[in-house]
Amino acid sequence: MDIYEQITKMADEMSGDLTTQRRDFHKFAEKGWFEMRTSSIIARRLTDMGFDEVLVGDQVCKKEARMGVPSDEELEAQYERAVAQGADPEFVPFTKGGMTGVVGILHCGEGPTVAMRFDIDALGVIEEKDASHRPANEGFGSVNEGFMHACGHDGHATIGLGVAKVLMSIRESLHGTVKLIFQPAEEGVRGAKAIVENGHLDGVNYLIGSHVSDKDAADPAAVIPGSYGSLATSKYDVTFRGLSAHAGGSPELGKNVMLAVATSILNLYAIPRHSGGISRINVGTVAAGSGRNVIADEAHMEIEVRGETTEVNKFVEDYALSILENSAKMHGCTCETKLMGAAYSLASDEALINRIKTVCEEHLHLPVAKEINSKNGGSEDVSYMMRRVQEQGGQATFMRVLTKESAPGHNRRFDFDEQVLPNAVKIFCGTVYDIMK
Amino acid sequence: MDIYEQITKMADEMSGDLTTQRRDFHKFAEKGWFEMRTSSIIARRLTDMGFDEVLVGDQVCKKEARMGVPSDEELEAQYERAVAQGADPEFVPFTKGGMTGVVGILHCGEGPTVAMRFDIDALGVIEEKDASHRPANEGFGSVNEGFMHACGHDGHATIGLGVAKVLMSIRESLHGTVKLIFQPAEEGVRGAKAIVENGHLDGVNYLIGSHVSDKDAADPAAVIPGSYGSLATSKYDVTFRGLSAHAGGSPELGKNVMLAVATSILNLYAIPRHSGGISRINVGTVAAGSGRNVIADEAHMEIEVRGETTEVNKFVEDYALSILENSAKMHGCTCETKLMGAAYSLASDEALINRIKTVCEEHLHLPVAKEINSKNGGSEDVSYMMRRVQEQGGQATFMRVLTKESAPGHNRRFDFDEQVLPNAVKIFCGTVYDIMK
Amino acid sequence: MDIYEQITKMADEMSGDLTTQRRDFHKFAEKGWFEMRTSSIIARRLTDMGFDEVLVGDQVCKKEARMGVPSDEELEAQYERAVAQGADPEFVPFTKGGMTGVVGILHCGEGPTVAMRFDIDALGVIEEKDASHRPANEGFGSVNEGFMHACGHDGHATIGLGVAKVLMSIRESLHGTVKLIFQPAEEGVRGAKAIVENGHLDGVNYLIGSHVSDKDAADPAAVIPGSYGSLATSKYDVTFRGLSAHAGGSPELGKNVMLAVATSILNLYAIPRHSGGISRINVGTVAAGSGRNVIADEAHMEIEVRGETTEVNKFVEDYALSILENSAKMHGCTCETKLMGAAYSLASDEALINRIKTVCEEHLHLPVAKEINSKNGGSEDVSYMMRRVQEQGGQATFMRVLTKESAPGHNRRFDFDEQVLPNAVKIFCGTVYDIMK
Amino acid sequence: MDIYEQITKMADEMSGDLTTQRRDFHKFAEKGWFEMRTSSIIARRLTDMGFDEVLVGDQVCKKEARMGVPSDEELEAQYERAVAQGADPEFVPFTKGGMTGVVGILHCGEGPTVAMRFDIDALGVIEEKDASHRPANEGFGSVNEGFMHACGHDGHATIGLGVAKVLMSIRESLHGTVKLIFQPAEEGVRGAKAIVENGHLDGVNYLIGSHVSDKDAADPAAVIPGSYGSLATSKYDVTFRGLSAHAGGSPELGKNVMLAVATSILNLYAIPRHSGGISRINVGTVAAGSGRNVIADEAHMEIEVRGETTEVNKFVEDYALSILENSAKMHGCTCETKLMGAAYSLASDEALINRIKTVCEEHLHLPVAKEINSKNGGSEDVSYMMRRVQEQGGQATFMRVLTKESAPGHNRRFDFDEQVLPNAVKIFCGTVYDIMK
Repeated sequence: MDIYEQITKMADEMSGDLTTQRRDFHKFAEKGWFEMRTSSIIARRLTDMGFDEVLVGDQVCKKEARMGVPSDEELEAQYERAVAQGADPEFVPFTKGGMTGVVGILHCGEGPTVAMRFDIDALGVIEEKDASHRPANEGFGSVNEGFMHACGHDGHATIGLGVAKVLMSIRESLHGTVKLIFQPAEEGVRGAKAIVENGHLDGVNYLIGSHVSDKDAADPAAVIPGSYGSLATSKYDVTFRGLSAHAGGSPELGKNVMLAVATSILNLYAIPRHSGGISRINVGTVAAGSGRNVIADEAHMEIEVRGETTEVNKFVEDYALSILENSAKMHGCTCETKLMGAAYSLASDEALINRIKTVCEEHLHLPVAKEINSKNGGSEDVSYMMRRVQEQGGQATFMRVLTKESAPGHNRRFDFDEQVLPNAVKIFCGTVYDIMK
Repeated sequence: MDIYEQITKMADEMSGDLTTQRRDFHKFAEKGWFEMRTSSIIARRLTDMGFDEVLVGDQVCKKEARMGVPSDEELEAQYERAVAQGADPEFVPFTKGGMTGVVGILHCGEGPTVAMRFDIDALGVIEEKDASHRPANEGFGSVNEGFMHACGHDGHATIGLGVAKVLMSIRESLHGTVKLIFQPAEEGVRGAKAIVENGHLDGVNYLIGSHVSDKDAADPAAVIPGSYGSLATSKYDVTFRGLSAHAGGSPELGKNVMLAVATSILNLYAIPRHSGGISRINVGTVAAGSGRNVIADEAHMEIEVRGETTEVNKFVEDYALSILENSAKMHGCTCETKLMGAAYSLASDEALINRIKTVCEEHLHLPVAKEINSKNGGSEDVSYMMRRVQEQGGQATFMRVLTKESAPGHNRRFDFDEQVLPNAVKIFCGTVYDIMK
Repeated sequence: MDIYEQITKMADEMSGDLTTQRRDFHKFAEKGWFEMRTSSIIARRLTDMGFDEVLVGDQVCKKEARMGVPSDEELEAQYERAVAQGADPEFVPFTKGGMTGVVGILHCGEGPTVAMRFDIDALGVIEEKDASHRPANEGFGSVNEGFMHACGHDGHATIGLGVAKVLMSIRESLHGTVKLIFQPAEEGVRGAKAIVENGHLDGVNYLIGSHVSDKDAADPAAVIPGSYGSLATSKYDVTFRGLSAHAGGSPELGKNVMLAVATSILNLYAIPRHSGGISRINVGTVAAGSGRNVIADEAHMEIEVRGETTEVNKFVEDYALSILENSAKMHGCTCETKLMGAAYSLASDEALINRIKTVCEEHLHLPVAKEINSKNGGSEDVSYMMRRVQEQGGQATFMRVLTKESAPGHNRRFDFDEQVLPNAVKIFCGTVYDIMK
Repeated sequence: MDIYEQITKMADEMSGDLTTQRRDFHKFAEKGWFEMRTSSIIARRLTDMGFDEVLVGDQVCKKEARMGVPSDEELEAQYERAVAQGADPEFVPFTKGGMTGVVGILHCGEGPTVAMRFDIDALGVIEEKDASHRPANEGFGSVNEGFMHACGHDGHATIGLGVAKVLMSIRESLHGTVKLIFQPAEEGVRGAKAIVENGHLDGVNYLIGSHVSDKDAADPAAVIPGSYGSLATSKYDVTFRGLSAHAGGSPELGKNVMLAVATSILNLYAIPRHSGGISRINVGTVAAGSGRNVIADEAHMEIEVRGETTEVNKFVEDYALSILENSAKMHGCTCETKLMGAAYSLASDEALINRIKTVCEEHLHLPVAKEINSKNGGSEDVSYMMRRVQEQGGQATFMRVLTKESAPGHNRRFDFDEQVLPNAVKIFCGTVYDIMK
């Protein structure tokens, strides 16, 4: 029995455990920067397996590089919740204040460094409670009202633990370094940058990420080995501050943020189209003013820009910042912008894509999709990690692991066929072995 | 002792009672459309005095003509509060759902109809609790957190009851009809129109309203018999509705209210200045959108316009409505506007002003201010009632009854010298007698 | 000698005549709707060759469907110029008022109708006079200052006449109907629609258009048989009308087009990006107002929209018209829009492309470019004609006939290698014969 | 015969000469900075009368402080015209380049300095040629097509010369200094500042200006001795510069002034109303862009602001400049603003008003209007001079000399009853004598 067969056998055997673990994560869904219970359990498992290094707390994310972090009050409340819901007592204290995420490292002598990324956060969605929704029916629906694993990251975290266990058992056959990155706050593209800025992708030769993806039940394909496209994006929270005054009595004494808001909205949408590719801009929310007869002195907006390439995104982003600043100045107001999320556009490396295809077809006997490099619609912050690896001459890919889904991602009725869990474990481990053997 | 002397004597004697009554109203301050306890007590008193007619509930305000009415939930909660705070059990049921206000009528045979208006609502202000604030120190600070009589309407309601008592006692000397209007929701200029639309000002020959007004402690003047100016105003709540879409995936499928909002804000402020007098426009608050990456499909704005004359106000109002409608249409959205308050500009009649001056100086021996017709800064919805009376050939005035105030109106430290209460009773009653004798 | 060889021989022999004709057209360059001399000469030549039908004047373009027609004064002045420059006296009267263009028809019995389109107008460019520019050096530079054949339509018209002559000589071998369309005012995409609306494309089974296109001198390829892409476009002139008033004395009496202009500009650029493809919008020029202290009562704008598909273009166009209309209404102004040019996106039919490739390679021994269907950047109103033919089940293509150019199109130093003239005649005639043999 | 009687007699006797002089000025109307013939004739007359000092050229206006100066080409062409129309050969050379205006000084020993201001420029109006218009009928209609004395400054200049002559003849009775200021370019409020900046108002104790003003033919009043109000104003030419690009091919390469224009227009009109008084803003003209499919790289706007007080005007002006600058910056464009005219609000001194009233009624037997200080609607740059005098503790007034007018000012049919000329001479001289006697 060669190593590929060993991997396949182990993954199949742990199938039930994977399902159990996934359902536990699903039930105790935790939104970005709140993955305190999840992180503590991952750290516990890796430690118990005997990983050489298990990094937690500020060893994972650079504290000040995290984006879109909730308020201290919310973080504290969620910490208490996590503890009450059975977080591991040894590791959960490291997650205080939203310092979530785990990195597990296995040193296997000389050889390439292979990193894998598994995102672990849930969404702000209220899960369906009707019995027609399997998690509700089988008792693993989210008990955290308003948080739901509606995008499959419960599966991603579970796959990561499965990969950890299999690689541990074949470590003697591996040459180099294995790095498992359990990333918080992928939703809103808020977490990857903080991990990159802590240096975890420096020196990495190969990076593999993945996402569950819907398929026709009749289609045997188990994986699309690469992705490209997806829009680069930057997300900002904007605060305008002016000066209030009585709108009837002395309007001239005000510095009216309402005018700054309106001027910036129209001009933001009017940013030129770019010949270099698709661009997008959106002012998603605005809240301004305190009373009908008062000149408004404070306004908040949530905006985002996107670009087919990182350069197009940068063009729109820079233009937007100029509009915001000058819209404020024009009316004697100030403008503060805070980056709340960011991602680059995706580009998987052909060599790595082809390696995965070969491993699956020749060694794992898992069917590969016809189109081996598929276009990706949304934004993914694994792109931050991929770019860092590729800039250093490494190879990176973002795979789609295929499964039957019950509803589109982000929908309150989302669920997936758990067969994808052992499949994904095989693909990750088979590829890692192929690189490190 | 002539009737004027009788009035003076009675008013002076009821001074203590007036103070007690005012402090009760002050302690149980009720905001517009919540004056349920206040209304019930006024109706009780008028009934006990033997008024010919005491109108309550929908006999006062035309239900659907009320503006800026709170939600059913709030009205219900406030009703329960009012009951718990000692509202009169016979009359309070009529006030359910915000049907507040009272009209008391005295039929004294042939002769003119003289109406008086007393507004009774408090403001949404949190009252000062420091002992340096007399109501706090002497135990009559508002027990309804967030509601405060910071504009003296507790005094106005009290004066109305004092006037009722005095006129009752001299009814044999009066010829015609006396109508006392206790109006709800003057703040935000929301209540007068609903009373006018119920016909209460039809057939009225004389209308007198008043407001407490600050003076130098050393200044003996007790009254300014007339007012002019004050800006006509219209207040609107605006709702834009569009269609949401994913801002990255298919922005063209949205109908973006954000663009309607921005277009309307800039154009509203850009409405032409008017050669006919001062104009104002304000977009006080805006709230729009549901998420950063979603094309916004709903927006709410609170706006107001003002004009030195009713015509200037109308010009700005009509222009504003056109802007709102077309800003919505331009982007495939709809726009709904709801009038939340309105007032005309004020114009007191010279004949009535002079009559009050004469009555005060010659009969009541109360000093009158040098400037007998003063310019008024804010907006007052007694203007609605005055206009109706004046359109029919009647005379109307809005007096300033003078008193030492501890802070400006609408301030959390507002209080006033209660000597103004008997003074005002004398001026109202003396003038009514002068007309109806 | 087969017919293909005959065509080749005739085209090669008329090479010198083609050059002479092209240089005559070049020298007397005429901008869109001014091609009066050009049209009269084409009509003369076709008549002299014995064409069955030679349509001129309003038989070519539907008068009211012409777009971007100059003023009557300009048309009259240009008519006089054309007459003075040797226009054909029999035909030039039909071109009065800008009724330019010619259609020549050859009836060859039963069979398909094959139409060809040759555009004949020059640009508003001042031609280079330096001797380093061949037309200047060899004496055929434009004598009409400000008009220049800087886009090769002199060549296109010449090719059309060459095709006419060759087809005439082989008419016995043809079965069906040949239709040669000499189109005016292609620049600004203003002329094709008026020809389509006169029904000239109804019943056409095949349509071929072409454009000279630059190539590397060393590249032997003579033709790219098809084109796709190019942006659909619509071009509008916009007039806002309001009411003037003294800006200091009574601004409220005005209906200010300046506000309609500004509102529409910002909103036009803010039209949503489209997930269906590239879109563009531009407000190229604005002129408004009559004096500093006068509320502006008239404004003119020149705008254009583009879309990667006809549908995307339509989306932007419809949205733009809504913005213009409502920006005007909002301020009590009116808005008039006039379509000044329009084109669809291009899509050549694969079957016809392949036929041309085969004819060139197998029968004419002319090398074909590797990429047989090339993306087109600008806008082309042959797209109007192609769409009509394709809607009826016909086949259409827009070829690139390749030649060495001295400068980019629309440049004052533009010129091209005249060898392309006989080449193009061969390709057109060979293909027509292939279809109609 | 006292001096007042002497003044009256002389003025009456010169009546015919005044009419002749006025009609000469009317016939050869010259717009602002083109008053080359007019200035030369005034300088000639004052010199011939024997004035102590006759200042011309750059002794009058500070060259670089002149506002709204036409191009060198226009100035040169107008200079040639002036010479051809009989300008005085000695003085006209000083007016080259638009250095128009004259100051005449009479030193009469110790005593106050009394300055008078007479504006001399015509308007850009095409004069009525119909015989129903007296100047046309009697042969003194403007021969300078497009220039017309439609605001009576021909009369003002004439009055100044009449005053010069009378004061010369009574100089022995005067004590102090007389200064006659013949100001160019009052229309557009462009000239006064340049005279003030040359120091001509420094040390002046009294300043009197005047304007002809319409009256009822039956009304005997000859003068309103004072004016107040009139709006302070600032007039700017604005140029935006950006970068052009092909709107279809690479819109992102442009810096689009069209967006700067639209943003600034909406925001300019949206500048807050001011509680300190009336304000106005107008964007009178805009011209931008070079072609439909080109991103616009240059735009010109003519704007003006006004305020009831100089402070209100300054508020709007400063706000406007901030809007313009930031609208440009927002889009990577630059903005250049050039002050083209400016005036303060008017405030005549009561003491001087009363003095004129007394002089007219008691000494000149000229009836004075009931309202001796009238509100002024437009803008007047004599306000610049008045403010300088008043700042130094001097007295100033701007009188209305009353006459029957045939049409409103600035109308092509404007004319006035020339009886006003001797009347005004009397009032000026009587008042000067009263001050300096």
